[in-house]
Amino acid sequence: MSKHRAGAFTLPGESGYEALTLELAERWGADVIRDSDGTKLSDEIIHAGYGIYSTLCIIRDHNVWASRNPDKLQQCFLITNPKVAVQGYVSIYLMEDFFAEQFRVNDSKEAFKYWQVVDRTTGEEVPREQWNYEREAGNVVLTGIAPWHKYTVSFMAYRIWEEISMYNHTTNHWDKEHLMQVDPMYADTQKYLLDWMEDWCLQHKETTVVRFTSLFYNFAWIWGSSERNRHLFSDWGSYDFTVSARALDLFAERYGYSLSAEDFVNGGKYRVSHIPAEQRKLDYMAFINDFVIGFGKQLIDLVHKHGKLAYVFYDDSWVGMEPYNDRFPEFGLDGMIKCVFSGYEARLCAGVKVDTHEIRLHPYLFPVGLGGAPTFMEGGDPTLDAKKYWIHIRRALLREPVDRIGLGGYLHLVEPYPDFCDYIEKIAGEFREIQELHQQGKPYQIKTKVAILHAWGKLRSWTLSGHFHETFMHDLIHINEALSGLPVDVQFIDFEDIRQGKLQNCDVVINAGSAGSAWSGGDCWRDSKCVDVLTQWVYEGGTFIGINQPSAVNGYDSFFRMAHVLGLDEDTGSRVAHGRWTYEVKAEEGLVPEGASLTPKPNIYLTDGTATVMDEASGSITLSTHAFGKGKGIYLPSFEFSWENTRLLLNLLRYAGNELQETKYLTDNLYTECAYYPESKKLVVMNNSSQLQRTTIHTEDGEHTMELAPYDTVILTIGGK
Amino acid sequence: MSKHRAGAFTLPGESGYEALTLELAERWGADVIRDSDGTKLSDEIIHAGYGIYSTLCIIRDHNVWASRNPDKLQQCFLITNPKVAVQGYVSIYLMEDFFAEQFRVNDSKEAFKYWQVVDRTTGEEVPREQWNYEREAGNVVLTGIAPWHKYTVSFMAYRIWEEISMYNHTTNHWDKEHLMQVDPMYADTQKYLLDWMEDWCLQHKETTVVRFTSLFYNFAWIWGSSERNRHLFSDWGSYDFTVSARALDLFAERYGYSLSAEDFVNGGKYRVSHIPAEQRKLDYMAFINDFVIGFGKQLIDLVHKHGKLAYVFYDDSWVGMEPYNDRFPEFGLDGMIKCVFSGYEARLCAGVKVDTHEIRLHPYLFPVGLGGAPTFMEGGDPTLDAKKYWIHIRRALLREPVDRIGLGGYLHLVEPYPDFCDYIEKIAGEFREIQELHQQGKPYQIKTKVAILHAWGKLRSWTLSGHFHETFMHDLIHINEALSGLPVDVQFIDFEDIRQGKLQNCDVVINAGSAGSAWSGGDCWRDSKCVDVLTQWVYEGGTFIGINQPSAVNGYDSFFRMAHVLGLDEDTGSRVAHGRWTYEVKAEEGLVPEGASLTPKPNIYLTDGTATVMDEASGSITLSTHAFGKGKGIYLPSFEFSWENTRLLLNLLRYAGNELQETKYLTDNLYTECAYYPESKKLVVMNNSSQLQRTTIHTEDGEHTMELAPYDTVILTIGGK
Repeated sequence: MSKHRAGAFTLPGESGYEALTLELAERWGADVIRDSDGTKLSDEIIHAGYGIYSTLCIIRDHNVWASRNPDKLQQCFLITNPKVAVQGYVSIYLMEDFFAEQFRVNDSKEAFKYWQVVDRTTGEEVPREQWNYEREAGNVVLTGIAPWHKYTVSFMAYRIWEEISMYNHTTNHWDKEHLMQVDPMYADTQKYLLDWMEDWCLQHKETTVVRFTSLFYNFAWIWGSSERNRHLFSDWGSYDFTVSARALDLFAERYGYSLSAEDFVNGGKYRVSHIPAEQRKLDYMAFINDFVIGFGKQLIDLVHKHGKLAYVFYDDSWVGMEPYNDRFPEFGLDGMIKCVFSGYEARLCAGVKVDTHEIRLHPYLFPVGLGGAPTFMEGGDPTLDAKKYWIHIRRALLREPVDRIGLGGYLHLVEPYPDFCDYIEKIAGEFREIQELHQQGKPYQIKTKVAILHAWGKLRSWTLSGHFHETFMHDLIHINEALSGLPVDVQFIDFEDIRQGKLQNCDVVINAGSAGSAWSGGDCWRDSKCVDVLTQWVYEGGTFIGINQPSAVNGYDSFFRMAHVLGLDEDTGSRVAHGRWTYEVKAEEGLVPEGASLTPKPNIYLTDGTATVMDEASGSITLSTHAFGKGKGIYLPSFEFSWENTRLLLNLLRYAGNELQETKYLTDNLYTECAYYPESKKLVVMNNSSQLQRTTIHTEDGEHTMELAPYDTVILTIGGK
Repeated sequence: MSKHRAGAFTLPGESGYEALTLELAERWGADVIRDSDGTKLSDEIIHAGYGIYSTLCIIRDHNVWASRNPDKLQQCFLITNPKVAVQGYVSIYLMEDFFAEQFRVNDSKEAFKYWQVVDRTTGEEVPREQWNYEREAGNVVLTGIAPWHKYTVSFMAYRIWEEISMYNHTTNHWDKEHLMQVDPMYADTQKYLLDWMEDWCLQHKETTVVRFTSLFYNFAWIWGSSERNRHLFSDWGSYDFTVSARALDLFAERYGYSLSAEDFVNGGKYRVSHIPAEQRKLDYMAFINDFVIGFGKQLIDLVHKHGKLAYVFYDDSWVGMEPYNDRFPEFGLDGMIKCVFSGYEARLCAGVKVDTHEIRLHPYLFPVGLGGAPTFMEGGDPTLDAKKYWIHIRRALLREPVDRIGLGGYLHLVEPYPDFCDYIEKIAGEFREIQELHQQGKPYQIKTKVAILHAWGKLRSWTLSGHFHETFMHDLIHINEALSGLPVDVQFIDFEDIRQGKLQNCDVVINAGSAGSAWSGGDCWRDSKCVDVLTQWVYEGGTFIGINQPSAVNGYDSFFRMAHVLGLDEDTGSRVAHGRWTYEVKAEEGLVPEGASLTPKPNIYLTDGTATVMDEASGSITLSTHAFGKGKGIYLPSFEFSWENTRLLLNLLRYAGNELQETKYLTDNLYTECAYYPESKKLVVMNNSSQLQRTTIHTEDGEHTMELAPYDTVILTIGGK
């Protein structure tokens, strides 16, 4: 599987390594050469006949202008740690807990009106008359207050060091100027940036694609003053870093009500993406999205005017872009580039409505990788890293294609790693073959269609909030990763979709997460209408798969709102004096593969004893099913990604759809998977493991048995075509 | 330590075994002989010169009268399992889930008005017009309702089989008449019982003590129709089995508002003792307590009139008695008998305001013991059982005395166990020596005084709700058991006590339990006044020890209301995107003994990094301390009783009270403990283990080192007296 075809590959070029650049461009079949953070392209490379991507972070690299316009830097709300008053007076130093190189107090008149002091013992705001800001000392002083209560100050701060740059700078111990981020919310900034963009286009005629990295607002990343807790808060889905006095004023004009600091800081918890958003937050997100589209489109139009394409890198300053929002096409972007470590990220990229989808593979050409582990240096094994990433991405690309792949970083680092260069050549070949398969028709899927139900629905398709390692504690990311390569139709829906009748198009609804989280649904489950619709839908044949604390919300007779469908519930403490139904475990033949393993939850109990327990661990239920009308409820206390659990999930979906007996186009060895393309009769078989695997696939043309080398891919044509 | 003294011992006699009865009465020093459930005393025994206890269960053993008065049987509310309506109509069979031999639907006019049908999807009551009771079929039929909602019926039921009798009957496969329980709430029942009591006293002139077993109302124990879930609900502290139409009517007259079925069934959760009571429940408890005192006193007065003493056995039908209520002395009882498995139960008995405190030791003279394990039969080792119970009770009795001990059951069973008879003789001797020690003065205690804070406060001193094996899932019972034998002053307080200034008398407050429980405090923590008082008290020198989810309640900036004192908090999901303070474990010399072990909780985090982590397990905090003013907060994620953890608790209290360096009158081997009586200069040293132990005690008279046989007790006199 390595027929040499060219194209659809973006190579990071490097000035000073022209021969290497052009040699690898040839070997890997690159059609585009890009620069990276820290590298430049020489004229020799630029004029070698390749397309040229230029990376561009529009809101930083303007330090001269930014220094002259310190009131147009980006901002955010910060909240001090609660402080107990031991008398009727307390003084709170605002910057006590915050990284002084990232923040500067914004006490301008416009911002100051949004500051809030709150008595956290009672939850009530302290009136303005009772506090005073001592600008020189940086303290807020409270007087005439209740002793022994604890108090916080929520204040506005300028962000004076662009966060991604700050991270790279401190991690690599750079010794250069701190880059500031300008806020395009201000008219002067907009004018400046448009002029700058025009000028840049004029000066970069060789650039074929402007690769925005990314747009304006970074995800929230609040650093602390102490090295013992440097990363106070990071939320890849948060809009906290879009805030400014101007944005809030404009919001109030548009929406007819004002947001307060508390709408963002939430007593120190912030409004994290993992908790369902209230309407005020949704309004604010819509407001920012509208702004980002509006000004983003002006920049993109300008790029187009210069005959270049505009791609956006979907990371870092992605906030307000929302590729799964219906308004996304308004940007007029030509392409989306996503860095991918996991299968779900490939699906995330593939599903965006844009002409060109490109994924940036890993490892990044850098001495160290995620978490500081060695990559292209002593102790690293970049080829093995590449294989491990590729097996997850490959299975996702077999389900839904993207248009291009690429790498990033310092190309010269690959020189001592010829096996890496070979492997990238192999990946590039496989990628092009996979692309070709899709052109002849969609891959075979099982009949059962799946909807993932959570509070964000389609807007957060595939991702929760950032990369896998940032969201691993949520069951749903494990489910998404497993699903990303399964032969199953998947959609992401929210509770409004339920009310709007979207369940008609699916056979299985999965609801997975901890109580109160956006993924389980939290307060969204208070809407009885949703419970009714789901209940009827299951009764008429649907399957509701609940994982961890599905449909959980306090205030009803059951903790799980879907307890009547699941046949079980969780005791949150009020049923500690209740008896529990005993049961016998009744395994379903062919359902739970060997090695599948689910961590039990201790307080799950059968509500009326009619659910069937299919698996247990340590005396607690790990898998149950409950007939409800023509449909059923299925419960799992947890889900962690593994190849064994991935196969369990597939089996559960087949079981839910009453197609467990249909084994066509499924491997009989769970460490292998396959994808079948009926139009071309091509069967792609993958080995996802580091061991040699033997696998048999039952097809319309009989059984096919084969052996696959570790991590390998084999493509067959069925029926002797 | 087995000087032969007599008295203070109650022996279960048995007709047909007169010689054995009198021989053991002599050996064990009995001064009283009792009958037991299933045994009788012959004339020979009765007239042998011993005091005679007669056990008497006042509300059962009246089947003739009960059969003629089926409307005066005891009652309760039951709630059906929620049933989903698949159309606008649903029929619910009331007795579907309930044990037909225990309950009979009470559809009398008086009771029927308290029935309720509830839409559990919305939580709203279904109007009477929409449902109908089909008496013959036993169904409630709902019409014109919302399809896909789930519905419950709460109805009143007569209880037709007295629960303790039902349990003994079914466990022992008896073949005899079911005993019913009559309800003294009805005037006719009262008249009948007073006449019966008078008659009984006249016929039992030999009886010196009437031992009520117990009063009128059993703890709630609802049995199910399925053998797979026979014990649907059991709550030793619940008032659910006091309910009747008459009681509710009288309550409404007295309190000016009516209780509903929902006030009891609570959507199927019932109002369990482990959750803080709302005012309506407290009102109802006060109402029942008033009634039980009123009618109980009439019976007790009658017993007194006949020259007999009235003791009450504190178990089973104890509801409404409330020995730790200030009104308890109004009963005029002469004695309280408590069956004890654990140290905390001995303290519970010892602390009641009554003349005579008696504990019934275990094992019960029965072929099988708790949970059906063999005792006086093949496979049993009753002597070892007795030793294991005694080591827990002994240490409690050394702290606070009771007046008598006793046994119960079938005496003839001990014949094949001479070592058991020897050991009981030894226990009886030890008990009398311990009693004597107390007469000369109180035992030495450390200076630090402890208050246990929970929602029930003094009313539930020592116990949570029943025996240890019924409440083992709560941290607090483990704490109580550990404290029961420690040289520490202990009181139990509630949140009103905090408001009333009771903290002035204590140095340490312990708050231990899971969020929302009565033991942690649940909604009681919403009162900011309590938080203020505790905060100030700690700041001025007190120590707040929080265990598991202390002071936890939703709706504030922190989950633990005392987070500012503890220096840590629990993340309930909204801080999953927050950074965590790193820490170094800093052990305090002499604080955590070898073998102490606390199960960590995964989501505990340091709030501002100033708390000191003293111990951790699996990367999670298991012990921390946080300076707050002159006082401190100490946190433990859990507490399970063990000798190692008991010593840890003692050390924590000494640390809290700044007396960790004072080692006088403490053993240096945690498997041993001691009690010192300064007035008599007696030092009692106990071996709590099954191994020989060597231990040294530092006293005012120098060090004393000794070896103790397994489970043994040694008494020394200090200073050569």
